[in-house]
Amino acid sequence: MTSDISGAPPSAADLKLQFAPFSSALEAGFWHQLTQKKLNDYKLDESPKCIKGYYYNGDPVGLPTRLTLEFSAFDVDAVTPARCCPAVGTLYNTNTLDAFKNIDKRALLEKEAKEMWNAICSGAALKEQSLLSRFILLTFADLKKYHFYYWFCFPALCFPEGIKIIQQPSLLEAVFSPKQVTVGFYDPCTLSQHPGWPLRNLLALLANQWGSKLDVVEVLCFRDRTLQGSRSIQHSVVFQIKLPGLSSNSGCPKSVGWEKNAKGAMGPRMVNLSECMDPKRLAESSVDLNLKLMRWRLVPSLDLDKVVSTKCLLLGAGTLGCNVARTLMGWGVRHITFVDNAKISYSNPVRQPLYEFEDCLGGGKSKATAAAERLSKIFPGVNAKGYNMSIPMPGHPVNFSQATLSLAQMDVEQLEKLISEHDVVFLLMDTRESRWLPTVIAASKRKLVVNAALGFDTFVVMRHGLKKPPASRGVDSSPSCSSASSSPSTPAGSAPSVPGSSLFSNIPGDKLGCYFCNDVVAPGDSTRDRTLDQQCTVSRPGLAMIAGALAVELMVSMLQHSEGGYAVASSSDDRMNEPPTSLGLVPHQIRGFLSRFDNVLPASLAFDKCTACSPIVLDNYEKEGFDFLSKVFNSSHSFLEDLTGLTLLHQETQAAEIWDMSDDESI
Amino acid sequence: MTSDISGAPPSAADLKLQFAPFSSALEAGFWHQLTQKKLNDYKLDESPKCIKGYYYNGDPVGLPTRLTLEFSAFDVDAVTPARCCPAVGTLYNTNTLDAFKNIDKRALLEKEAKEMWNAICSGAALKEQSLLSRFILLTFADLKKYHFYYWFCFPALCFPEGIKIIQQPSLLEAVFSPKQVTVGFYDPCTLSQHPGWPLRNLLALLANQWGSKLDVVEVLCFRDRTLQGSRSIQHSVVFQIKLPGLSSNSGCPKSVGWEKNAKGAMGPRMVNLSECMDPKRLAESSVDLNLKLMRWRLVPSLDLDKVVSTKCLLLGAGTLGCNVARTLMGWGVRHITFVDNAKISYSNPVRQPLYEFEDCLGGGKSKATAAAERLSKIFPGVNAKGYNMSIPMPGHPVNFSQATLSLAQMDVEQLEKLISEHDVVFLLMDTRESRWLPTVIAASKRKLVVNAALGFDTFVVMRHGLKKPPASRGVDSSPSCSSASSSPSTPAGSAPSVPGSSLFSNIPGDKLGCYFCNDVVAPGDSTRDRTLDQQCTVSRPGLAMIAGALAVELMVSMLQHSEGGYAVASSSDDRMNEPPTSLGLVPHQIRGFLSRFDNVLPASLAFDKCTACSPIVLDNYEKEGFDFLSKVFNSSHSFLEDLTGLTLLHQETQAAEIWDMSDDESI
Repeated sequence: MTSDISGAPPSAADLKLQFAPFSSALEAGFWHQLTQKKLNDYKLDESPKCIKGYYYNGDPVGLPTRLTLEFSAFDVDAVTPARCCPAVGTLYNTNTLDAFKNIDKRALLEKEAKEMWNAICSGAALKEQSLLSRFILLTFADLKKYHFYYWFCFPALCFPEGIKIIQQPSLLEAVFSPKQVTVGFYDPCTLSQHPGWPLRNLLALLANQWGSKLDVVEVLCFRDRTLQGSRSIQHSVVFQIKLPGLSSNSGCPKSVGWEKNAKGAMGPRMVNLSECMDPKRLAESSVDLNLKLMRWRLVPSLDLDKVVSTKCLLLGAGTLGCNVARTLMGWGVRHITFVDNAKISYSNPVRQPLYEFEDCLGGGKSKATAAAERLSKIFPGVNAKGYNMSIPMPGHPVNFSQATLSLAQMDVEQLEKLISEHDVVFLLMDTRESRWLPTVIAASKRKLVVNAALGFDTFVVMRHGLKKPPASRGVDSSPSCSSASSSPSTPAGSAPSVPGSSLFSNIPGDKLGCYFCNDVVAPGDSTRDRTLDQQCTVSRPGLAMIAGALAVELMVSMLQHSEGGYAVASSSDDRMNEPPTSLGLVPHQIRGFLSRFDNVLPASLAFDKCTACSPIVLDNYEKEGFDFLSKVFNSSHSFLEDLTGLTLLHQETQAAEIWDMSDDESI
Repeated sequence: MTSDISGAPPSAADLKLQFAPFSSALEAGFWHQLTQKKLNDYKLDESPKCIKGYYYNGDPVGLPTRLTLEFSAFDVDAVTPARCCPAVGTLYNTNTLDAFKNIDKRALLEKEAKEMWNAICSGAALKEQSLLSRFILLTFADLKKYHFYYWFCFPALCFPEGIKIIQQPSLLEAVFSPKQVTVGFYDPCTLSQHPGWPLRNLLALLANQWGSKLDVVEVLCFRDRTLQGSRSIQHSVVFQIKLPGLSSNSGCPKSVGWEKNAKGAMGPRMVNLSECMDPKRLAESSVDLNLKLMRWRLVPSLDLDKVVSTKCLLLGAGTLGCNVARTLMGWGVRHITFVDNAKISYSNPVRQPLYEFEDCLGGGKSKATAAAERLSKIFPGVNAKGYNMSIPMPGHPVNFSQATLSLAQMDVEQLEKLISEHDVVFLLMDTRESRWLPTVIAASKRKLVVNAALGFDTFVVMRHGLKKPPASRGVDSSPSCSSASSSPSTPAGSAPSVPGSSLFSNIPGDKLGCYFCNDVVAPGDSTRDRTLDQQCTVSRPGLAMIAGALAVELMVSMLQHSEGGYAVASSSDDRMNEPPTSLGLVPHQIRGFLSRFDNVLPASLAFDKCTACSPIVLDNYEKEGFDFLSKVFNSSHSFLEDLTGLTLLHQETQAAEIWDMSDDESI
């Protein structure tokens, strides 16, 4: 019934013309591009999309006629390769395999056929031949498995009785002599006895437009081949046909065109690219997928690029560091650097999820480098590095010898360099005093700082206040946090006026305290004489996972805020209000109590006598550099306390307490 | 000045007796046992402990005299090996290296010397010779690194002027003839010219007690050796000495005894066993260490054994399953079983912390088995298994053929077996309906169930109500949860009277709802026609870590409650009250809101028409088994809804709504 090439060979008598259908040729680049489009543009949109393929007129004998779609298919303005004809098509990409299966294929074909028929009837196809060589591509992309289901259609309008052959196809030279109307077409087909599919609708056009005037039509299948190194048209085929009428009055003719599958049956095809694609690239796309899905329905305003491009420095690669790194990976962060000076011990792997038993053998690998290696094993696309180094600390003298002093200076310079190169600094160490130096450096460099610390069943996760850039530096000196927080709403150097902020609510980011702001003693050596339970982080095992996850979620929420680190701190009271970001609140601190399964969100002001972030400390650090720092390392508490005025405060407080007591008695 | 063997060889004239000191011989078994004692008994207790060693009388020439401590050292009643002498000592195990360094070693020695002297002066040592061969062992065990620092002392009382030798040591046979008092002692020393250390205080005893009467004393160093396969005393040495007086009136003599270190200097020794110990055993001890530390200062009443011995079945090895398993490992849980039928895809490793990129290659490993393998890599002591199997679900028909039906029946039986073999069942799947079957089975078998489910930035973690055992089974049929909840306060079969519980507070564990109790439709096929964002768990990356950690912490809190799964549900209001366990609250549900960094603790009653845990469902399951289940799998929602009476409820509700509307209008 159909007039294509399938079925028994035609009998000598009463020959009807048969056509070589297209074979779809979908290159891997096309599927890659489809994946990108689906993830970035189409998302859940199933509406038809315009795509473009081409067919080549130059294949040697024996090759099927291919309609090729490559990576450029989605660019309708893309240049068509030499000796190729463009073919414009419609892509129907479904969201589900069920939709792919259940879509009304006949209706799609008929819709396309009808449009073609209209273009034929109106004569539009006379001016624009490409209206006759359209295709339909139905796809379902299973992006979790990288399985792609597809079905091609090359709509062709049929002649009810077929097209009878009058003269058997012969070679061009043997035939060519002007007798009647000859219709030439650029024929991609290589079969000596059959023209290619593009002729079908061309003939329908002819029949409709001139059918009554053209009884016999000679058809020249122009085949532009390469023979022995030079172009040749020797393979071109000419034949004559008797062209039936196709009157506009009789309505749209029947149509065919769905491609057979590999088994030769009517049905879709499936290609599994997961095996042949670069697995590392596959992993990258897959990781992106999960993230992008968040935006599709749930948080369309989510600025993923800001998160993904954030460079994170993790000081500490222990229980917290491992969990923070894992959560960052989940968020797609690609640049993660660890600093730690410890080796992996046998008790670590069950609580520090980047290490395994084997890492403990032979004295244990360095945590920082092992953690970075593990991230690459989890996701090869990550840019992870580890620095096995110590962070000098107040009260831990470095002046035993010139060598120890030089070593400390190198450590400081390395840390300064690392903090400069990153956008967010995570403080995840297990002592208080090791957080001092990075707090000072990061405050001076205006970097975002997220700090997490564990008790037995309590934790604190906080962002440090982000100081305004020094006014003296001028407007063109943007804060170093700008790469992570590219919001234009807080131009550097032009501090917005602070809205009337009470003591504990509506504190803007630049007025928030750091980890040391609530302390009235300077950090000192807390590691001497610690008992075993003080040496190890003794906490409920779930705690570090929760605190690590919250530290990253706090960072992400801060990055989503238009003011970044300058965002006003949300408090527990804001839980009922409209959240400031698409992800919700941006608190200063999250203090968690696992025994009550409760979190509170306190906010506190920066302390002008803070031993880490007060102006006098930053000023001394910025002017004197290592000379100032080494004084802090080598001195007892009192050096910083004297410097910041805490000593005086203590004295005043004591005096006040005495006065208070006597006052009490005097009443 | 001291009279031991060190220093230049004695000159021929004016010879003084010199003694071969003990060499400490501490076997690895001793350190293992010390580790256990420290972790389980001593904890932070630094008070002196009585230990026991021995010395062997049978060494060939050339060996140092060893005082050996082995694993039995802490058992003072342990049998002393043949041909060995016991030596009782005092162990001082410090909490810190600083304490080890700073302890007053002279004072320890003098204390011991004084006691010995008292025993000598009182004559007690005459009856109990072991009072004279005491030792001191000072240790610091760095259990994080498995470094052990120690210093031995074998206190010996000195003669102010030394002990002059009258006759050079000669062999027994050459000398033995009755001339004067001969003192024999069991001599571990192998030097031909010197007696062993034990003689020192024996001579002090003699000198003090009979010094004035005994001028010359012959000493027989009895050496019990093996020579050419038979015991021999040929090596025994005899010599004569002039015994000085040691009067009680002159007070305690000077004492010596601290052992030299390996360099021959006075100083402590260090042994690093981490290299030579079985690393797997090291890992086990280290993991225990962190847990036990919790109890030392923080939660002395914590019942760790109950947690560690709990057998956990994790249904689902995805984002939640991986995080739950990691937290369980942190708690020391040793028996973890995974059930999942999925393979690891490229997007998994960054969010599912038991998988790596390599696990995704070649189509991906089975999650369940890969997860179990990873646990063993993290901690070889774990007993982890994975079952790559499906869980039959309501609305997912299994009756396509006899084969599919049999397969489903096998899956059900396997699941029933697994649930029977475990104490706690975690529901961590990504569909609602896959939780139905394990909910029914676990409810019927009275197993603890912890359920976790994720939204985009919200989660629910809950324990299912634990039904009372059927009264008809009699008192001797204890509930199957008893291995995880060995509390005697809720004897099986004798349900305690429920305290007056309002609708939402003080609900006892057996009246709490399950995951399905709040639903008024039965579970059905939710996987058909899901779009990509519905197929993947789209949630903020930190969410699964938080929910996974909380699921385990909820389990642990429940296990710590004296009533286990029957514990009254804590609610948000209880946060200010005295907590029911040493770890805090035991809520029914934790519902978390990441955008607000907030958790609430609702509690709800079991629903008598619940499609999973209502009496009629359990009854049908228990009576009809797979016949009943297959009806559920093969039917639409209505089967369960009809069975439980939900259908009727719907009709009544609709009727009520109609009535309500007209009622509104009539007012």
